[in-house]
Amino acid sequence: MSKKVAIFDSSLRDGAQAEGISFSVEDKLRLLILLDEHGVDYIEAGNPGSNPKDLEFFARAKAVALKHAKLAAFGSTRRRDIKVEQDSNVQSLLLADTPVIVIFGKSWDFHVTDIIRTTLEENLAMIRETVAFFKAKGKEVVYDAEHFFDGYKNNPEYAVRTLQAAVEGGADALVLCDTNGGTFPSEIGAIVAKMVGMFPVTLGIHAHNDCGMAVANSVAAVENGARHVQGTYIGFGERCGNANLSTIIANLGVKRDFECLPADQYRNIVHVARHVAAISNIALNEREPFIGNSAFAHKGGMHIDGVNKASHSFEHINPELVGGQRRFLMSEVSGRRMILDKIWEVDPNVTKDDPVTDRIMKRLKELEHEGYQFEGAESSFELVVRKQLGRYRSFFELEHFKIIGEQPTKGEFGSSAIIKVKVDGEDEITAAEGDGPVHALDSALRKALETFYPELANVHLTDYKVRVINGKDATAAKVRVLLQSTDGDAIWTTVGVSTDIIEASWLALVDSIEYKLIKLEEAKLSRRN
Amino acid sequence: MSKKVAIFDSSLRDGAQAEGISFSVEDKLRLLILLDEHGVDYIEAGNPGSNPKDLEFFARAKAVALKHAKLAAFGSTRRRDIKVEQDSNVQSLLLADTPVIVIFGKSWDFHVTDIIRTTLEENLAMIRETVAFFKAKGKEVVYDAEHFFDGYKNNPEYAVRTLQAAVEGGADALVLCDTNGGTFPSEIGAIVAKMVGMFPVTLGIHAHNDCGMAVANSVAAVENGARHVQGTYIGFGERCGNANLSTIIANLGVKRDFECLPADQYRNIVHVARHVAAISNIALNEREPFIGNSAFAHKGGMHIDGVNKASHSFEHINPELVGGQRRFLMSEVSGRRMILDKIWEVDPNVTKDDPVTDRIMKRLKELEHEGYQFEGAESSFELVVRKQLGRYRSFFELEHFKIIGEQPTKGEFGSSAIIKVKVDGEDEITAAEGDGPVHALDSALRKALETFYPELANVHLTDYKVRVINGKDATAAKVRVLLQSTDGDAIWTTVGVSTDIIEASWLALVDSIEYKLIKLEEAKLSRRN
Repeated sequence: MSKKVAIFDSSLRDGAQAEGISFSVEDKLRLLILLDEHGVDYIEAGNPGSNPKDLEFFARAKAVALKHAKLAAFGSTRRRDIKVEQDSNVQSLLLADTPVIVIFGKSWDFHVTDIIRTTLEENLAMIRETVAFFKAKGKEVVYDAEHFFDGYKNNPEYAVRTLQAAVEGGADALVLCDTNGGTFPSEIGAIVAKMVGMFPVTLGIHAHNDCGMAVANSVAAVENGARHVQGTYIGFGERCGNANLSTIIANLGVKRDFECLPADQYRNIVHVARHVAAISNIALNEREPFIGNSAFAHKGGMHIDGVNKASHSFEHINPELVGGQRRFLMSEVSGRRMILDKIWEVDPNVTKDDPVTDRIMKRLKELEHEGYQFEGAESSFELVVRKQLGRYRSFFELEHFKIIGEQPTKGEFGSSAIIKVKVDGEDEITAAEGDGPVHALDSALRKALETFYPELANVHLTDYKVRVINGKDATAAKVRVLLQSTDGDAIWTTVGVSTDIIEASWLALVDSIEYKLIKLEEAKLSRRN
Repeated sequence: MSKKVAIFDSSLRDGAQAEGISFSVEDKLRLLILLDEHGVDYIEAGNPGSNPKDLEFFARAKAVALKHAKLAAFGSTRRRDIKVEQDSNVQSLLLADTPVIVIFGKSWDFHVTDIIRTTLEENLAMIRETVAFFKAKGKEVVYDAEHFFDGYKNNPEYAVRTLQAAVEGGADALVLCDTNGGTFPSEIGAIVAKMVGMFPVTLGIHAHNDCGMAVANSVAAVENGARHVQGTYIGFGERCGNANLSTIIANLGVKRDFECLPADQYRNIVHVARHVAAISNIALNEREPFIGNSAFAHKGGMHIDGVNKASHSFEHINPELVGGQRRFLMSEVSGRRMILDKIWEVDPNVTKDDPVTDRIMKRLKELEHEGYQFEGAESSFELVVRKQLGRYRSFFELEHFKIIGEQPTKGEFGSSAIIKVKVDGEDEITAAEGDGPVHALDSALRKALETFYPELANVHLTDYKVRVINGKDATAAKVRVLLQSTDGDAIWTTVGVSTDIIEASWLALVDSIEYKLIKLEEAKLSRRN
């Protein structure tokens, strides 16, 4: 049996059903190009008849020269008791002008009789005639058998007859859907095994994650002969989401010898997943398999020790195979070794019994107690180490600052900041406006310091995250601010914690600027030597 | 075979290895009590010898009268080439004074020879003697066979001998661990099936989620005879996390007829999961099966229609069985019906062809375009509807406000707010300090309005969330603020969006107060009628 598994991404269609997801046409086009370049086989969008946005998308998608993927439009079988040519939803699917059409129909007898309310025979005709209609138009037709597993468990004979009807209509693939996400992998495996070989077309799987087993269900289907997997690249979708294709591809294509992507694309999985998350404007779960920030992060001291001896002792795959990175986390559990590695980056001459090591450990615990976390804020951590090692100098002194957020009578709300700093005995006072108090403060601080350090003109913030540490006290809770900065080349992250969002932002801003100035100074020194 | 499956929660031990998790002793005690009342069978904490926090925890846990659960301490087999009595880690486990001891040992020959670097025979003695040591002290001993599946695939005979050694030592349960999380459900099922019946003790499963299949692996193990499941209640743990017990319990105990909890506890699953998340200070993934906020949320119009006809048509279980709630989401896809339901809550006489329905739809789209999302902010949505229906009056007029965040020379940072409002032609100007600018503004607004509306004294904020909508523009990005308020009885949520966090917070604050005042006025009117 062939090892090729067709990957069918429905981020633009089923994924758009997810709570919190709302794509613009631009977003959809960017995802289309990204997934095509990644080597996905099919990309499904919606129905141009049901939504003007989808109509615009399909019109603009025609101008995109796809390298690998085939674009698919998605719609229902014709309605009951009318001719297929007379169904406006069926006709509107043609407007998408795609090479592939996905038609979904009912497999579960209860849905036929109680939800769409027609006869079992009429439902078979609806499936057969709709598939045949699109085959006659020269389309590749994928038939999605909605609620197939629920239907099969209720009335296996009828469920099989619905598949037969799609094959009679000329369907190129039959996709068995666990629409409600309630089926277990052992059931999926057994039922798929029975269906494989019964029809002369590819069998596929479409799983939902309501039992937390959509990936396992998809894998079980492929192990039992399915060769087409539907899902969304990072798993979003209605309710608990669709099957996560990035996980499935890594499981089947990296850990097993199935062909899911072009061979050189597996190592882009992490990159593509994070890009999809960014375009979709959702936060990737840190613990997401393969692609999450914690996927290859080790915290326990023993695990870190083991991975250092032999990486496969505590890693199921080499992270590089999917483009991921091993990380060792700083924490009380991982202990001294991690801290020492960081100290040695700043000063390789410190021994592990040096009292400064203890002082750094102690300071770290104090800061963690205050709500700091240095995971993902390595630059602030380096500054903590430098301060204890005496390898730190401050580049400016703050005299004072004031932020004003003002809603004047009959005017627009505005934020501004005044700041006075001293550098080498020289005062500088300045002010700036901003979109929000932190933006105003950031602008004023840079403006004041650029007089002394013109290199700061290249630095800007690329990400700003606010985390309320203790939501229960509401607006008086502590907040942790994470800043990501760049000079166009390096990227660094800093952290600040306070009950006041302005103060927390200020602390992270100062770390960001000091870190940059320290690196500049070191670069100058090493050029001189 | 018995249907009882022992539930073993390791949130306090393996869960504490998760990135971003840092428990205080208080947190651990609260989790202990919560999980015990929920009816979990075993609760595992760490090793009092490795960590002073764990020592304090076990000392204080003795004062807790557990109703259902047994407390377990966790440690390794003795080190190589010493007597078990002389191993300080083994001895320190006794300090925990728990009825149950969990001992982990090596099953994978490669780990024996290359990581702990001893002979295969010595490893068997380490397992046997350590288990026997704790049995002689009267403990119930659970043996965790680390890397069992990797070991079995590499050298099945040796892996089985390690289990045999634990049984010879007197182990009460053998737990097969997929430590690296790399094993597939089909493999787990087949291997567990071979082990069941080979030993006269309970077999258990301990799965990690590196392939996104920890739940499926645990379910497969139970389907093949395992009767003890280890995991963490909401799935956090090192790297991609441990098996999620809330999902496993719902799958086995609600969807199948296994006994995982006392019968009346299944409907507390959602509540307990959210409580665990709150104590652990982590955000629950919205799409988490059974327990996530989106788990039973329907967005597609057809699904909503189907669920209204027969809930099991698009739901794999009744949400109430786990204490969840069905939700219908507002969005362009779900269409008019949802909006109409909301309109009818305010005014049952509006017909669906009324032009006001179109106006509300249009306004909703404009606001979504600006970055609003009303999912989870139903009270703000109701205000939008009321404004369009003319069923809204404002309870105060803002004259102006000013917020000052000040870092004075040699002083502490502080925030304060000045506000002037007008109610029924009467002016009130006041000021307040706060922990942060939003807190100061909130305090000042309430102080000003309490003069006119003393009922507001009961209202306070219970949650404050900030979401940066577009992280790329950093501090100038748009922010969405979600506020949750309560008067001690009802809970309501409101939303505000702006490029300025102060303005976004202000908009959500005003909605929160107006919503409360509208409800008060309506309650007074209905009492009068």
